[in-house]
Amino acid sequence: MSHPYAKNKTDLLTRLRRIEGQVRGVQKMIEEDRYCVELLTQLAAIKNATHKVALSILDAHTRGCVADAIHHRASENEKIDELMEVIRQFTKG
Amino acid sequence: MSHPYAKNKTDLLTRLRRIEGQVRGVQKMIEEDRYCVELLTQLAAIKNATHKVALSILDAHTRGCVADAIHHRASENEKIDELMEVIRQFTKG
Amino acid sequence: MSHPYAKNKTDLLTRLRRIEGQVRGVQKMIEEDRYCVELLTQLAAIKNATHKVALSILDAHTRGCVADAIHHRASENEKIDELMEVIRQFTKG
Amino acid sequence: MSHPYAKNKTDLLTRLRRIEGQVRGVQKMIEEDRYCVELLTQLAAIKNATHKVALSILDAHTRGCVADAIHHRASENEKIDELMEVIRQFTKG
Repeated sequence: MSHPYAKNKTDLLTRLRRIEGQVRGVQKMIEEDRYCVELLTQLAAIKNATHKVALSILDAHTRGCVADAIHHRASENEKIDELMEVIRQFTKG
Repeated sequence: MSHPYAKNKTDLLTRLRRIEGQVRGVQKMIEEDRYCVELLTQLAAIKNATHKVALSILDAHTRGCVADAIHHRASENEKIDELMEVIRQFTKG
Repeated sequence: MSHPYAKNKTDLLTRLRRIEGQVRGVQKMIEEDRYCVELLTQLAAIKNATHKVALSILDAHTRGCVADAIHHRASENEKIDELMEVIRQFTKG
Repeated sequence: MSHPYAKNKTDLLTRLRRIEGQVRGVQKMIEEDRYCVELLTQLAAIKNATHKVALSILDAHTRGCVADAIHHRASENEKIDELMEVIRQFTKG
């Protein structure tokens, strides 16, 4: 069975490979004794890119899984509980 | 017409009045030349409490307005677009 | 004794009074049964404005209290521990 | 020349390699059509782990580079400007 993010699979994989490269990049910067602030800027970029990938999947999930559960009135409350829990993980204080 | 958060009206108003009191409290701390870190701790508490009020309303909104729109297939996409936009405002980087 | 934010006292108080007004505004919106998304947008604005006030105070605190402690090598480590703890409160996940 | 994070080099590299593995893990989960919420939980963990690595480096940077600049009154203001800019990147709304 495929999930709603499947239609963006290629795009998501490309973005995650780029993030993987950025994480390796920071390791290299540490090996090369690069200046702290350069590392921090790169780490902020990784967090930001990861967040954007998550928002894409969350968007597909809401339009797909959550809307389906609501249409079919099938475990509607559980799906919304789960969605709210995910939102809580991504939105802090 | 009443909105889905209406059932928590009293609770939400109590929490917002407490936040209002905290904001006034910070003004008083500034007048009294209190130590920066005390102010910062109080401001973090205000942000956090505001965030929790927003999560309560977002929860009610998703279970109410969004689920309704999906059930009735009425402006379903618009409602989900709007929901995602709100989530974006509350989840940054 | 006055603290480093004292030079911005008037500005900080003006901004906090505006935030206080926004918090009262949300209470009024709840009384008037306004649409959830309007409330959420307003709450995001409050969080954001509170965060900016905190950043101003944090800036003054770092240039003032923290730099002083370092200059005088007086409780330098404690001041930096405290600063890092505040940064932790304002930066989550 | 080595930077203040150098003393934690091994620990930082271990943590970054773990993050790299988690990012590859999410790619694998996408290939295997795993459930959206599992992906989202993993992405939240990556963001969180990246944030913690950044806080470690920021801590070392403040105690090292920033405190040094202040001690020697050498480009003290520039260092604090730079620090505040980094803090801004990691603390949003």
